[in-house]
Amino acid sequence: MARPTPLSGFPELLPAQRHVEQQVLASLAATFELHGFANVETRAVEPLDQLLRKGETSKEVYVLRRIHDTEGDAGMGLHFDLTVPFARYVLENAGRLEFPFRRYQIQKVWRGERPQEGRFREFTQADIDVIGRDTLAFHHDVEVARVMLDALGSLADPGSIGLPGFRLQVNNRKLIQGFYTGLGVTDTDAVMRAVDKLDKYPEDRVGALLVQDAGLTPEQAESCLALARISAPDSSFVEQVRALGVHHELLDEGLTELAAVIEGCAPLVTDRVRIVADLKIARGLDYYTGTVFETRLDGYESLGSICSGGRYDALATDGRTTYPGVGISLGVSRVLVPLLGKGVVEADRSVPSAVLVAVVDEESRAASDALAGQLRANGVPCEVAPAAQKFGRQIRHAERRGIPYVLFPGVADQAPEVKDIRSGDQTAVDPATWTPPVEDLHPRVRRNPQEQL
Amino acid sequence: MARPTPLSGFPELLPAQRHVEQQVLASLAATFELHGFANVETRAVEPLDQLLRKGETSKEVYVLRRIHDTEGDAGMGLHFDLTVPFARYVLENAGRLEFPFRRYQIQKVWRGERPQEGRFREFTQADIDVIGRDTLAFHHDVEVARVMLDALGSLADPGSIGLPGFRLQVNNRKLIQGFYTGLGVTDTDAVMRAVDKLDKYPEDRVGALLVQDAGLTPEQAESCLALARISAPDSSFVEQVRALGVHHELLDEGLTELAAVIEGCAPLVTDRVRIVADLKIARGLDYYTGTVFETRLDGYESLGSICSGGRYDALATDGRTTYPGVGISLGVSRVLVPLLGKGVVEADRSVPSAVLVAVVDEESRAASDALAGQLRANGVPCEVAPAAQKFGRQIRHAERRGIPYVLFPGVADQAPEVKDIRSGDQTAVDPATWTPPVEDLHPRVRRNPQEQL
Repeated sequence: MARPTPLSGFPELLPAQRHVEQQVLASLAATFELHGFANVETRAVEPLDQLLRKGETSKEVYVLRRIHDTEGDAGMGLHFDLTVPFARYVLENAGRLEFPFRRYQIQKVWRGERPQEGRFREFTQADIDVIGRDTLAFHHDVEVARVMLDALGSLADPGSIGLPGFRLQVNNRKLIQGFYTGLGVTDTDAVMRAVDKLDKYPEDRVGALLVQDAGLTPEQAESCLALARISAPDSSFVEQVRALGVHHELLDEGLTELAAVIEGCAPLVTDRVRIVADLKIARGLDYYTGTVFETRLDGYESLGSICSGGRYDALATDGRTTYPGVGISLGVSRVLVPLLGKGVVEADRSVPSAVLVAVVDEESRAASDALAGQLRANGVPCEVAPAAQKFGRQIRHAERRGIPYVLFPGVADQAPEVKDIRSGDQTAVDPATWTPPVEDLHPRVRRNPQEQL
Repeated sequence: MARPTPLSGFPELLPAQRHVEQQVLASLAATFELHGFANVETRAVEPLDQLLRKGETSKEVYVLRRIHDTEGDAGMGLHFDLTVPFARYVLENAGRLEFPFRRYQIQKVWRGERPQEGRFREFTQADIDVIGRDTLAFHHDVEVARVMLDALGSLADPGSIGLPGFRLQVNNRKLIQGFYTGLGVTDTDAVMRAVDKLDKYPEDRVGALLVQDAGLTPEQAESCLALARISAPDSSFVEQVRALGVHHELLDEGLTELAAVIEGCAPLVTDRVRIVADLKIARGLDYYTGTVFETRLDGYESLGSICSGGRYDALATDGRTTYPGVGISLGVSRVLVPLLGKGVVEADRSVPSAVLVAVVDEESRAASDALAGQLRANGVPCEVAPAAQKFGRQIRHAERRGIPYVLFPGVADQAPEVKDIRSGDQTAVDPATWTPPVEDLHPRVRRNPQEQL
């Protein structure tokens, strides 16, 4: 087999990079569990009719065929998100779940995209959702925003993993639909689709779209753009909207809800994670019915929204019972793969081992194994040198892996000695009780100080 | 959408069952890392030519096709094990890895089996391997056996997860091939394939196969069966083999290696995890060249081997460099899905929350949220009641989920009170400092005492 080359769109990590990803996933899981979210894992495949239900979004699905089956495909495809499988899981297990049901789900998803720079065909998402039976109180919209802010705040904590900061942008579909309706617009979806383009096009081009495609008068178009310009880190946006002079019952409801999300999140805001009411956020193609979320990574705005979601009135339905839900999905690979690729965050060693136990000669390997066993009994990750080379070569073996300590077995009656290979300090220790300082116990993930944003 | 039904072969777990699986996976990862194994995760897909390289095993592969691609499949399939992808990962990244390279990998694998009772089409494996460049010392065979024994010992620890006990069965291909060659047998592969059937067929039927299919004399066949009958928890098997009077250099080498594995593992043996030299283990279809492993779960022998592996002289090769390896693969789903299905192990609640924070009325929900925030700051998983119902109903809400404590916010000047809903005890607490006893902090996984083996 010749040396294989990477498959475009299927990112893989080296061990030290994977350690960063593991720490990120563990931090996310810990925060979600602190908020009472239970973990669920669904199978990778769903029946094709479920995956294609929202046909107009023309998702790029991978279809499966058994290799020995010449008669056609297996009627199944790989899931392209975690929402479709979760909705199916809830319907399938509704009788055995307690509602409102809070779950988090961290899994790979697949999209059959054409190979293209920056487009992933396999990537990891971390989703949280709260789902109710028949009804779901609005305060859960505030809750999911709080939980995700808390989770992102932990990731951006410089004392922890130290990712760049995050900005959660919130809007409300009732607010914008109520505003458009109050303006006298009938095709509010066309307006939303045009406003959704403000990220890509200059404002006057979107204004022209509003007139030409959505059939608005220039005055209506200008009002829509004025609404989209409003952005505030607190509930002051309410007065700014009122000042535009549009009135509608749905607008009032949306303003109240959006203000409640912003105010409810205020206690969690820091300089690393912020929340803003951003009235141009529409998430045009999705089926949201109230709160909508997007998120930008500071310094990496070109990635687009890396964490999005909102409220669905019917996340799932079996015809008799409807399950409303609200959730947010974090694109873990979308954030991490570029940061790891540029070395913005890194781990300081490529192995879990804090200690390399040296081997004096192959005859005494069992003694080195026993020393390693003593360290492990105290929770110290370690490995035994693969060959009884000269100690200098064994030390370089540790160095290449970033292992900070080498433990030398005592010969004859001497006590074992441990060397900190960074400082060169070497001292006699009792292997039954000695442990490295807690900060050396596991690989450290750190923001690379050379990396400027 | 009508209520969906499960897909045969794609097991999914309820939240409390998934918690058990998460604990098992965390325990495995912790042990592997204590032994210095780094985690690797590979993409789900491999090029079809790689998956089908060992064509004669006729693996059941799922092939992928992009749904909008009418011209044929994508040339990729889902991996059916973690060995093929790991070998490819090593070749692809050889210049950036340090050898010998220890890695663990815990991922789903897929097999396009026909739907059938007990056959999984998606399941989780946990693999450890040590891989060298050009050479790999034999002591790594002892190492991987020790690591897996340690990992299984933690799973079977009644003070921890409390799975049933495990019995690791070891043999050595050099031993059996040297024995057969020393007997004068030429087609040793045919003998191994016949001996491999001792699990399914009575001994005399295997004896007949040895004569008819492998062309042995009745005396040779009897010697092969006598070898296969040997089984010992210590190196006493060496004398038993010697007593059969067969001599060959390769046999001597195999005896020495197998004795070293058995003796090297002795310090890790307990009444829950045992190791045995079992000379009928052959793993006929696989490409092992030395040590071979199988494992039985006590009381569930009908599951077959749930953890298998061995030594490959060439786990990977790019034509110029060869990478020998030794590893073991644990079938996590194969063990857990039946145990969870029968309720042999279970978690005592369906949510991570240790505390439900009650809500006095919707106007004071923010006060309950703030109390929950104080608990979380001390690492206490908790959730806030979804509705300000009568306290009795809020307590029942906690009870249905198995949440052990309810925290009632103090009204007016009163301190908050916490109720242990198992005992009914209720006491005033300071939410800034109160935490539940550590054993109540997270869902407990326990062996169901009603379940007899």
